[in-house]
Amino acid sequence: MNAIVLRELGSPDHFRMEVVPDPQPGPGEVVVDLRAAALNHRDLFILQRLYPGIQLPAILGSDGAGVVSAVGEGVEEAWLGQEVLLEPGLDWGPEEARQSPAYRILGMPDDGTFAERIRLPVANLQPKPAHLTFEEAAALPLAGLTAYRALVTRGEVRAGETVLVTGIGGGVAVLALQIAIHLGARVFVTSGSDAKIERAVALGALGGVNYHDPNWGKRLVEMSGGGPDLVIDSAGGTSLETAVRIARMAGRIVFYGATTGLAPNLDLYRSFFKQLTLKGSTMGSPREFASLVALYAASGLVPPVDRVFPLAEAAAAHHYLATAGQFGKVVLRHPEPGAPSSSN
Amino acid sequence: MNAIVLRELGSPDHFRMEVVPDPQPGPGEVVVDLRAAALNHRDLFILQRLYPGIQLPAILGSDGAGVVSAVGEGVEEAWLGQEVLLEPGLDWGPEEARQSPAYRILGMPDDGTFAERIRLPVANLQPKPAHLTFEEAAALPLAGLTAYRALVTRGEVRAGETVLVTGIGGGVAVLALQIAIHLGARVFVTSGSDAKIERAVALGALGGVNYHDPNWGKRLVEMSGGGPDLVIDSAGGTSLETAVRIARMAGRIVFYGATTGLAPNLDLYRSFFKQLTLKGSTMGSPREFASLVALYAASGLVPPVDRVFPLAEAAAAHHYLATAGQFGKVVLRHPEPGAPSSSN
Repeated sequence: MNAIVLRELGSPDHFRMEVVPDPQPGPGEVVVDLRAAALNHRDLFILQRLYPGIQLPAILGSDGAGVVSAVGEGVEEAWLGQEVLLEPGLDWGPEEARQSPAYRILGMPDDGTFAERIRLPVANLQPKPAHLTFEEAAALPLAGLTAYRALVTRGEVRAGETVLVTGIGGGVAVLALQIAIHLGARVFVTSGSDAKIERAVALGALGGVNYHDPNWGKRLVEMSGGGPDLVIDSAGGTSLETAVRIARMAGRIVFYGATTGLAPNLDLYRSFFKQLTLKGSTMGSPREFASLVALYAASGLVPPVDRVFPLAEAAAAHHYLATAGQFGKVVLRHPEPGAPSSSN
Repeated sequence: MNAIVLRELGSPDHFRMEVVPDPQPGPGEVVVDLRAAALNHRDLFILQRLYPGIQLPAILGSDGAGVVSAVGEGVEEAWLGQEVLLEPGLDWGPEEARQSPAYRILGMPDDGTFAERIRLPVANLQPKPAHLTFEEAAALPLAGLTAYRALVTRGEVRAGETVLVTGIGGGVAVLALQIAIHLGARVFVTSGSDAKIERAVALGALGGVNYHDPNWGKRLVEMSGGGPDLVIDSAGGTSLETAVRIARMAGRIVFYGATTGLAPNLDLYRSFFKQLTLKGSTMGSPREFASLVALYAASGLVPPVDRVFPLAEAAAAHHYLATAGQFGKVVLRHPEPGAPSSSN
């Protein structure tokens, strides 16, 4: 089959198509013919050597949707031909509260979804919601799982609450926005781009502020009528510091990243006086992934796709992701089975 | 009656005994003849002008135990003669999760317990646990309430968990230690004093480390067999930073103060990777106070009293508290009714 094999770090140009052996399913496993994959910042972090335990060569890609084409020993043959969405995590372990030491994400060291086929445990399959194209479905897994755990499990979002999603545009933030609105929250956003704030409002956000305005916290409090009950943040730094300042009494702040660094002026005094809760969150459990997919299947929501590239153009797609200009997910479309670019 | 009236800030020497008018109960209120009060760092913060909204003159004192001597309109006469413990908060409000804007603590602006009598709402009374002396009972309210909310409500401590209480010796920390052990936790402590660690071990702590040792975090992990599930901290600074480093996966860190300042190196990356929860906590609700008193009544636990001073020596008692040498509460004993020092 064709796969995008990474043999060298440093630049997206090292994402190159190669012909590699077809995967074979082991016991309890399936092979999925992938129709679409999606990019994640994780892929860029690996390129930039900002990720632990890098092993090369590697087939990256944590998000995928496709059709089951082979089943291993002990797997029901009824899976064959099913349209599925892939849970991106392996070996989460028995505790909902935390991942096990064995936990890892598809795409390095395990072969990922930037390939025509993938082998993975049958337990990682969820039915693709029927209303979603493969590209739309592939936009959901890793970002949606992160958003779901941060917002629903860790954030305990409730209808009627005011939620602030910072840094709108990135995959997790956009899906958190979409899920929070669906669950009845009043959602506001921040962004460095007024155009992205407009896109968020078009999706149902009640408003947003540009974080380049040094008074954005005060403006957000005024706009939202008293500040957020819940903040979903991945910026850290002054974004987290401002969240502590503007959150309501007994508010919750969930952070799943710290892309702008630590928060040296995080106001601990205000945090205890206001009875605030700060929760770190990363990825999510199999139960959460099943709940996420069920939510999308039942609601008819469509994960926003920013742009679709052919699998063969994975390098260009990653260059595009690195510009941080996107709103929603950047997706790779795989060749149709039997098309000339396939190795079949 | 006699009362310790503060007319000037800056030094404990300004705590001076004066004769002031006897309090009269309003509707829904009682007057309690106080037998004992306890000191809190809040009193020192007020002296040092480190507390918001200072109004002078003031009768400080947030903790008290005594006997009901008068009841106002609408209050059952059966309260007369009852031995009671005073809830230190007023107007918490309807939400368990947070105090209302009207919330305040006995002792400035409302007259406090450094006086022979106090007037307060009947709703602030709880029966004094029969096994406690007045001095022991007076050691419980504010510190116990803070410890209870931090440990039980916010910390959600469970039997068998490993709990780290930092800065053992202070009133809240000692009561948190005592309650955590009673609830079945494995408790470890930190202190800058080996003698205080020994005192904690005598109360049931499984061990402790001196935070002057720069490797105290590593030593605590080894000693506890993997680090704490729950940390109760009021130091902030490197104490909180170390807590993030040594907490187990999905651990909780509750902080009710930040006496050593902010935590500029708080590791946000580790916090989300480890699925940590950090919770600010302050004081507690009427429901929590009732639960605290019921726990002490049912368990036979005795709040540790470090030293007892006569009410007239409030200045000396505060000088002593300021040395931070104590383990447990510093208590004031009020004159017996009819004794020469009383204004009766």
